[in-house]
Amino acid sequence: MKKVVKFGGSSLASAEQFEKVGKIIRADEGRRFVVPSAPGRRFAGDTKVTDMLYDCYHQAQQGQDFSGTLANIKDRYDAIIRGLDLKLSLDEEFRIIDKNFHALVGEDYAASRGEYLNGLVMAAFLDYEFVDAADVIAFDEDGSFNAKKTDSLLSERLSGTECAVVPGFYGAKPDGSIHTFSRGGSDITGSLVARAIHADMYENWTDVSGFLMTDPRIVEDPVTISTITYREMRELSYMGATVLHEDAVFPLRNEGIPINVRNTNRPEDPGTMVVESTCNKPKYTITGIGGKKGFASITIEKAMMNSEVGFGRKVLQVFEDCGMTFEHTPSGIDTFSVYVNQHEFEPHEQQVIAGLHRMVHPDMIELESDLALIAVVGRGMRRTRGTAGRIFSALAHAHVNVKMIDQGSSELNIIIGVENRDFETAIRAIYDIFVISQL
Amino acid sequence: MKKVVKFGGSSLASAEQFEKVGKIIRADEGRRFVVPSAPGRRFAGDTKVTDMLYDCYHQAQQGQDFSGTLANIKDRYDAIIRGLDLKLSLDEEFRIIDKNFHALVGEDYAASRGEYLNGLVMAAFLDYEFVDAADVIAFDEDGSFNAKKTDSLLSERLSGTECAVVPGFYGAKPDGSIHTFSRGGSDITGSLVARAIHADMYENWTDVSGFLMTDPRIVEDPVTISTITYREMRELSYMGATVLHEDAVFPLRNEGIPINVRNTNRPEDPGTMVVESTCNKPKYTITGIGGKKGFASITIEKAMMNSEVGFGRKVLQVFEDCGMTFEHTPSGIDTFSVYVNQHEFEPHEQQVIAGLHRMVHPDMIELESDLALIAVVGRGMRRTRGTAGRIFSALAHAHVNVKMIDQGSSELNIIIGVENRDFETAIRAIYDIFVISQL
Repeated sequence: MKKVVKFGGSSLASAEQFEKVGKIIRADEGRRFVVPSAPGRRFAGDTKVTDMLYDCYHQAQQGQDFSGTLANIKDRYDAIIRGLDLKLSLDEEFRIIDKNFHALVGEDYAASRGEYLNGLVMAAFLDYEFVDAADVIAFDEDGSFNAKKTDSLLSERLSGTECAVVPGFYGAKPDGSIHTFSRGGSDITGSLVARAIHADMYENWTDVSGFLMTDPRIVEDPVTISTITYREMRELSYMGATVLHEDAVFPLRNEGIPINVRNTNRPEDPGTMVVESTCNKPKYTITGIGGKKGFASITIEKAMMNSEVGFGRKVLQVFEDCGMTFEHTPSGIDTFSVYVNQHEFEPHEQQVIAGLHRMVHPDMIELESDLALIAVVGRGMRRTRGTAGRIFSALAHAHVNVKMIDQGSSELNIIIGVENRDFETAIRAIYDIFVISQL
Repeated sequence: MKKVVKFGGSSLASAEQFEKVGKIIRADEGRRFVVPSAPGRRFAGDTKVTDMLYDCYHQAQQGQDFSGTLANIKDRYDAIIRGLDLKLSLDEEFRIIDKNFHALVGEDYAASRGEYLNGLVMAAFLDYEFVDAADVIAFDEDGSFNAKKTDSLLSERLSGTECAVVPGFYGAKPDGSIHTFSRGGSDITGSLVARAIHADMYENWTDVSGFLMTDPRIVEDPVTISTITYREMRELSYMGATVLHEDAVFPLRNEGIPINVRNTNRPEDPGTMVVESTCNKPKYTITGIGGKKGFASITIEKAMMNSEVGFGRKVLQVFEDCGMTFEHTPSGIDTFSVYVNQHEFEPHEQQVIAGLHRMVHPDMIELESDLALIAVVGRGMRRTRGTAGRIFSALAHAHVNVKMIDQGSSELNIIIGVENRDFETAIRAIYDIFVISQL
């Protein structure tokens, strides 16, 4: 059993957190490859080390004295080292950083030092081999990620290694200069490592016990999703749910490696398993509820449009010509609606209307804005009759005016359009009918 | 109050039916403009006069002796004339027809004589002026209908007329040769007359007491729709319900002239009113249920399709390039389905699949056939919360597997996709929940 375990910044913010992480890693000997983030916030109002590094580098860029700021950063690490009682000195590392900051080698270099240094601390703490990500995560000269080279570097470097720490977030270009992933970068590193070593499991340790069924700002204390498929996760993330970074999921998904999202502060919680597919019967009919506000709909009415070859294509052509994407195209008889992002639409409104008139000569065009889309997602919906009935009865009972319904043949989700102001009410009503009523 | 009253073939099949029609017309002095069809079937197995005329003309074309057939046709009219005790002889008319049939003046001429002669009988019976449709319904040389010329001819000719009979179904080209409308032609004549004289009402007298809420072959003795909007009627007719001919509706709709569909054999029934719009609160939430079998769905799956400008346009382009129209395009997240007529799709199947692969590089394409679409139509749905909930609960209860749901922003209809084999069950379940439960 080979597991790659990635720890987020809050799991590594202090010596106390490192101790928890150590216990977790030692509890399972499969946890042989560790991907640490940089130390995060220890308390509300605290500053993440990465942000301190950015500030420090900006001071350097402006020719200011940044020695105080850099000393504060060193203090963060030294506090962890002292707390863990490690025989490790970062003096030489900080001397090099100081030199490189003076030489203004780059913002990516600066940002990456948080993970780099934390990797050194973690390796010393666990007595694991340290593998600098700059040696195994490869970017091309133009900054684009080189998946093939990375995979070969990683698998070669880690093949003879029993236990290793690979810091997240960064890699290097062919000339050796440091380059970072965009946000969520440590997860990308983690998933690349997992793919390269053909891990049996990728564990993502954070400060929440997995993914919640819906937004906790809307529903108080929603239940945790125990198992979710990659597909469901993608659908929920698309609809605004905070899940894993898209780029971090694809390497794992292609290899069929499951992800377990766990809570460092509550290791007894099983967390959420993210899998390619599962026979595991879900506890609830639905897996999650996602949603976003801020859509607009453009409804085109034209008698007998259905018998007009090219009608729909021409309508979508108008949006394409404005460089716009669309979300859904629900249609009735003689009506065809296009749901778009309101912010994207507004600058093109008149161009779209004029284009539609020119291209399809509609009888009428109706615009509606301030709409929200809600996605009810769940593989369990496929085998449960009456899901749609329950959803729409619940929405009716909650006095929500349903503007649009779209259920394609995937049967994995139902998309519902409501007014922005009904958004929270609708999500609560759907959550209640599937979760609260079942509890 | 000016009404145009049109009578279908079965309402004018015999002297007995003519007597009923006479009573109806005399019961309301607004009924001043009458548009008759040709005599229809008097009993099951009887032949319509129009079909007899076609047969007769085909005999003429083949150089056969058609005198016997023509005599049978004359007998049909003479029986009506005798039964009504009219002082009218059609001897001269039939002599001219015989001559024109020998001269092979055209099939349209032959077909039109049923209405023409019935118009003469009707005018004599009612003591109304006879207006030959050849003088007032204008076609261009290429056979296309000339709306503008017709409107001016009709309004001029009928402006000084108190009461008139205008036979349905035909008109004439500029050279005077007879040309007919396609099927439903008498209704087109009726609606053109109504528009030209700015009628207050167009009455369409048939052998049914209006439109039924759904197909009587699926639901036993469904209720009659009391008021339906043009829009709703169009939607139901599109989904297979037998209603008025499309071309017959548009002239009236543009003028806002209501249609009353009545039963000649049950004049006491109020029938169905077809109106442009109404505040009339419908008795049931839904106005009607239409549906058709024989659709196929093509589902395209591709990760992150929603962020790809032009994705939907390209998909529809593939269908357009095959000369195909589509019915609906329900979409989820990462899926986009196209519902098409199965018979239209089958010859193009491989072309469409290849085109989709080439144009959008999908992750997967899934085909499903033998699907049916059901449209639940009703202006009442707009103001009634929970309609969708009731529909989908009823379908779940009836064990119907809902493949697709599409409700655009019109809120006038919900489109539901089911398997062909669930079609009747689904319609019955929806009818029951809205009508039987409410009775």
